[in-house]
Amino acid sequence: MAQRILVINPNSTAAVTQGIDAAMAPLRFADGPRIDCATLAEGPPGIQSQRDVDHVVPPLCRLIEREHNATDAFVVACFSDPGLHSARETTDRPVLGIMESGLTTALNLGSAIGIVAILPASVSRHMRFVRAMGLSQRVAGDRAVGLNVVELSDEGRTFERLVATGRALRDEDGADVVVLGCAGMARYRERMEDALGIPVVDPSQAAASMAIGAIRLGWRTGRRPSA
Amino acid sequence: MAQRILVINPNSTAAVTQGIDAAMAPLRFADGPRIDCATLAEGPPGIQSQRDVDHVVPPLCRLIEREHNATDAFVVACFSDPGLHSARETTDRPVLGIMESGLTTALNLGSAIGIVAILPASVSRHMRFVRAMGLSQRVAGDRAVGLNVVELSDEGRTFERLVATGRALRDEDGADVVVLGCAGMARYRERMEDALGIPVVDPSQAAASMAIGAIRLGWRTGRRPSA
Amino acid sequence: MAQRILVINPNSTAAVTQGIDAAMAPLRFADGPRIDCATLAEGPPGIQSQRDVDHVVPPLCRLIEREHNATDAFVVACFSDPGLHSARETTDRPVLGIMESGLTTALNLGSAIGIVAILPASVSRHMRFVRAMGLSQRVAGDRAVGLNVVELSDEGRTFERLVATGRALRDEDGADVVVLGCAGMARYRERMEDALGIPVVDPSQAAASMAIGAIRLGWRTGRRPSA
Amino acid sequence: MAQRILVINPNSTAAVTQGIDAAMAPLRFADGPRIDCATLAEGPPGIQSQRDVDHVVPPLCRLIEREHNATDAFVVACFSDPGLHSARETTDRPVLGIMESGLTTALNLGSAIGIVAILPASVSRHMRFVRAMGLSQRVAGDRAVGLNVVELSDEGRTFERLVATGRALRDEDGADVVVLGCAGMARYRERMEDALGIPVVDPSQAAASMAIGAIRLGWRTGRRPSA
Amino acid sequence: MAQRILVINPNSTAAVTQGIDAAMAPLRFADGPRIDCATLAEGPPGIQSQRDVDHVVPPLCRLIEREHNATDAFVVACFSDPGLHSARETTDRPVLGIMESGLTTALNLGSAIGIVAILPASVSRHMRFVRAMGLSQRVAGDRAVGLNVVELSDEGRTFERLVATGRALRDEDGADVVVLGCAGMARYRERMEDALGIPVVDPSQAAASMAIGAIRLGWRTGRRPSA
Amino acid sequence: MAQRILVINPNSTAAVTQGIDAAMAPLRFADGPRIDCATLAEGPPGIQSQRDVDHVVPPLCRLIEREHNATDAFVVACFSDPGLHSARETTDRPVLGIMESGLTTALNLGSAIGIVAILPASVSRHMRFVRAMGLSQRVAGDRAVGLNVVELSDEGRTFERLVATGRALRDEDGADVVVLGCAGMARYRERMEDALGIPVVDPSQAAASMAIGAIRLGWRTGRRPSA
Repeated sequence: MAQRILVINPNSTAAVTQGIDAAMAPLRFADGPRIDCATLAEGPPGIQSQRDVDHVVPPLCRLIEREHNATDAFVVACFSDPGLHSARETTDRPVLGIMESGLTTALNLGSAIGIVAILPASVSRHMRFVRAMGLSQRVAGDRAVGLNVVELSDEGRTFERLVATGRALRDEDGADVVVLGCAGMARYRERMEDALGIPVVDPSQAAASMAIGAIRLGWRTGRRPSA
Repeated sequence: MAQRILVINPNSTAAVTQGIDAAMAPLRFADGPRIDCATLAEGPPGIQSQRDVDHVVPPLCRLIEREHNATDAFVVACFSDPGLHSARETTDRPVLGIMESGLTTALNLGSAIGIVAILPASVSRHMRFVRAMGLSQRVAGDRAVGLNVVELSDEGRTFERLVATGRALRDEDGADVVVLGCAGMARYRERMEDALGIPVVDPSQAAASMAIGAIRLGWRTGRRPSA
Repeated sequence: MAQRILVINPNSTAAVTQGIDAAMAPLRFADGPRIDCATLAEGPPGIQSQRDVDHVVPPLCRLIEREHNATDAFVVACFSDPGLHSARETTDRPVLGIMESGLTTALNLGSAIGIVAILPASVSRHMRFVRAMGLSQRVAGDRAVGLNVVELSDEGRTFERLVATGRALRDEDGADVVVLGCAGMARYRERMEDALGIPVVDPSQAAASMAIGAIRLGWRTGRRPSA
Repeated sequence: MAQRILVINPNSTAAVTQGIDAAMAPLRFADGPRIDCATLAEGPPGIQSQRDVDHVVPPLCRLIEREHNATDAFVVACFSDPGLHSARETTDRPVLGIMESGLTTALNLGSAIGIVAILPASVSRHMRFVRAMGLSQRVAGDRAVGLNVVELSDEGRTFERLVATGRALRDEDGADVVVLGCAGMARYRERMEDALGIPVVDPSQAAASMAIGAIRLGWRTGRRPSA
Repeated sequence: MAQRILVINPNSTAAVTQGIDAAMAPLRFADGPRIDCATLAEGPPGIQSQRDVDHVVPPLCRLIEREHNATDAFVVACFSDPGLHSARETTDRPVLGIMESGLTTALNLGSAIGIVAILPASVSRHMRFVRAMGLSQRVAGDRAVGLNVVELSDEGRTFERLVATGRALRDEDGADVVVLGCAGMARYRERMEDALGIPVVDPSQAAASMAIGAIRLGWRTGRRPSA
Repeated sequence: MAQRILVINPNSTAAVTQGIDAAMAPLRFADGPRIDCATLAEGPPGIQSQRDVDHVVPPLCRLIEREHNATDAFVVACFSDPGLHSARETTDRPVLGIMESGLTTALNLGSAIGIVAILPASVSRHMRFVRAMGLSQRVAGDRAVGLNVVELSDEGRTFERLVATGRALRDEDGADVVVLGCAGMARYRERMEDALGIPVVDPSQAAASMAIGAIRLGWRTGRRPSA
């Protein structure tokens, strides 16, 4: 039976999951791992605060337990990497977080990383995680597009704000690579890269790509506490 | 009505709460804040893994919401500071975490901090949090006493291991101040300090002391997300 | 006999000492340590340079020696923490410095600290001390209000400049907590916090609060060199 | 025509190239990029010094120029990442270095990285590169197996030394993930992981896996200087 | 016979070598080391990219080998320190790089270093080297004058841009000492210092001064790999 | 009239001053700056504590003021750099500190610095200064020889302990360059280097060498506060 990667969108908005799913297409090989995307039904419509981050962990771990036998690697597809280390204690399958994979991939593509956040309130949370990863020296800035949910549904306006935020990261903070600080926005990646002239990373793609490596090359991210 | 600090033990072991409560005595002033200690009934008997840390956050936040009106400052009394940032989004009362308060207090007492963990598996979790706080340059080592729950009930043996671990931190890692990496062990603090000859900090005491300052001096740790 | 904290203003300006003394009121408990404030007669009218910092150390240590028997904890109340480590070799009573206590307290209240200095020339001195404390990752900026002594006596103008400087720290440097980089300005703290919407710490209050903890909980900061 | 990854062994020892080539098997998908491995004829038999590192750059860049039109992504397969940044100025195809990819992948698999070097003289060179990547906080140690070329041909002895070195990294330095600091040793990876009980990364595999992501997802590492 | 320092300009532009040579005058003592300056004939007219940096290493090492017997210390006079560590493996004479010596000298002259680059493309290369040296905490900014070769031949315009760039480093980045990020511009140093009011370091002079120390005091920078 | 460097030994032990003076011989050029060494009569016999460090600042500044007109550069020759920043506010002549110059020179000679302290109590003071300089990433260890004054007068025993301490720094901490953490021990430098096989720096020599550069090349370290 084919190997399988399960990409979990920990918010309950199916449109986000569909955006992630579409972004997986280039990573689906005929004889490679199947890549499935799931929505965490118990999650909030969007993950906006640390409370949201923390509160999805229990249902996320239950989902991982349910899917454990049918899955070879998991991706947690929310840029705050909710429950990443809990998940790694829950299953001995590799678990990748899109913030961790997105930023560590970007380390290969530039010297100074810029993060495009959606909400201003996410910035200090992101910076806490950047420090926890020990990557402060490589992150040049984290700026929010500052659009609300309704505004984000306007693709033209969203693209315009993404590019403006990327330009501020590039020109004011000195970033030479940008990471999208959100799942489900891969459809803007290529156009944004063209507009900015520096690499732009969609973190869900980066994590799924690393999950393929993990499955094929035997990388483990954790062990059950009882092990 | 008197001001009130609520110290929450997020594990369900009442004996730990009692140990914390006894350690609060020196901070109870006639006209100072009342200091109450509560056990989180929904918590596990002990918090040993990141899963444990993450899973107590929802009930912890519910407890904080229930106690919000009757409380002026909260202390989360587990050395992994579970839900600290969620709690700060849950209430506009100051919330102190014992790891954060314990380490930042220790910065005033020495140059190189040693952390005495209970379990070996906690060390890499602690180091992730130390990096998140940006304090790596000041933490010289984190070593586990390596006793299980049954062994911890033997006070003589526990004290012996605490001192041996503190000595390794002092002599091999160069620590000149030690922080107990666990709630409810304040009864060993003074004797341990005498044995080691360097300051030893009980983190629950450090956090409660900072909570008094917060109440009396108007320090805020957060705001509701809606604010 | 009651325990006693001695807060030493190492400059010779009694008005500054009075400002500090007034700020201690919320920390005076009926059965808590007495908090006395003293002016270092031999100090300069204001501590503005590293020379000023270094030259107050000998008389400061003599004052500490004279007061040693009558004192349970000392606070050195100048934001450059003059003689802090000398003082800790002079007495085995705990000695807190207001820069060290102010910044380490602020680590509990936000992610990125902004320091409001009085004089532009203080900034590089502050940054040297911030590096010595290993806290560079957490200090977002240090900006001077840039008022001279005469101008500082105009409370309205001073408050206006404090708020403008705090806004620059918040909006340009990303600070989410501010520390007043000077003793004796606690009277502006609350209004400044209201104007900025982020926590503002008076460092003398932070140090005195930590001194109460030190006295009650047995924290030591040093030992005589002969020990 | 199929996409193609060219993995360049910059030393002239064909046996090393063959070891790398064998390690690529799990990454070869029916409809994925072809992965070819090439030996740099002008390289030295082994890259042991900074001089060796620097001297392969001109022929390496010439090889990349020759292969540019026929190649979609390059991997430089020597753990000192010779010419990595020059190569990125030579071609607008993505170029991955195995040290950079190996370490950044390991950041996803553990908290503290241990590097297994071959020669003691490589350690300070590695540490200079680790600092250049800004990853010092995450690298716990770098230790050499200390075998010469003849001894390395003895597989039993080499495996024994690899495991002993990994154990020292794990037990004395606190590493919880190990990166092989050399190309062409993937055949030891799995057995070493079994012996150590923590993840072991072969850096050539990590880089090739990232090269697949780069090709499929449009990540660029650089631009021609004239661009 | 007198001791001799050889300062190597690794680009092939004799005018740059002459500028360096003129800058050595204050370091030539009657009974001190002779200071000779040489042009690397095989170098490019200017070193602008990492490719340029890497490609001069082989001829640079050959020049050092040829001059080894007649030389007591070498200076590599290009601000990207091309081949510095290779050169140290090539000769057991001390080898100083002007970036390394310029920055480490500047650490004695101020708290926050500003680097004046010539080309915008050099900035990320410089920052990689600054990280490799572990000096990120002390470098406040790196800004390019942004003049091309023709424009650099206009001394008035060049001086104006140097001062404007220095002012931005001082006023926007907080630098209190500036290092010229290029060889052969010492003739602007003093006037620039007068215009800025903070120390300005010519890195070739800093390296030659350190080379005198190395010769007279026995400092070694390396050893042959065979040693 | 010849230029003049004044090297000030801030302790009152003339034998130390004589040791420093002898170490200056290689830096005295026929037409170079005169190098005089002075003993601070008001200093203690040895500088052992932070109190000693701080208490020599006032007489040190007075000495600098007296010698200002007759001096072109000052060196403060005690490894704790007492009063370095005060001295820089006292005179507009360059002032070098031997710890700062010794460590920054060593950055040119190796990757990982080991410091040989005399007293165990100096280590945490040194580490505070290393942090203040932002050099923690480059200092591998600081170990004390642990000899008292009487024992230090036994040259054979002292040399033996210096070498043993240097070996521990090299073999256990990974240092590849050693700095003597004390003034007046230059006579051991060369023999120690031969015994260890890695560079050994006498910090007074390093500072005097940098003072020559400062005088000849116009480097300034500070300005009067009134400027």
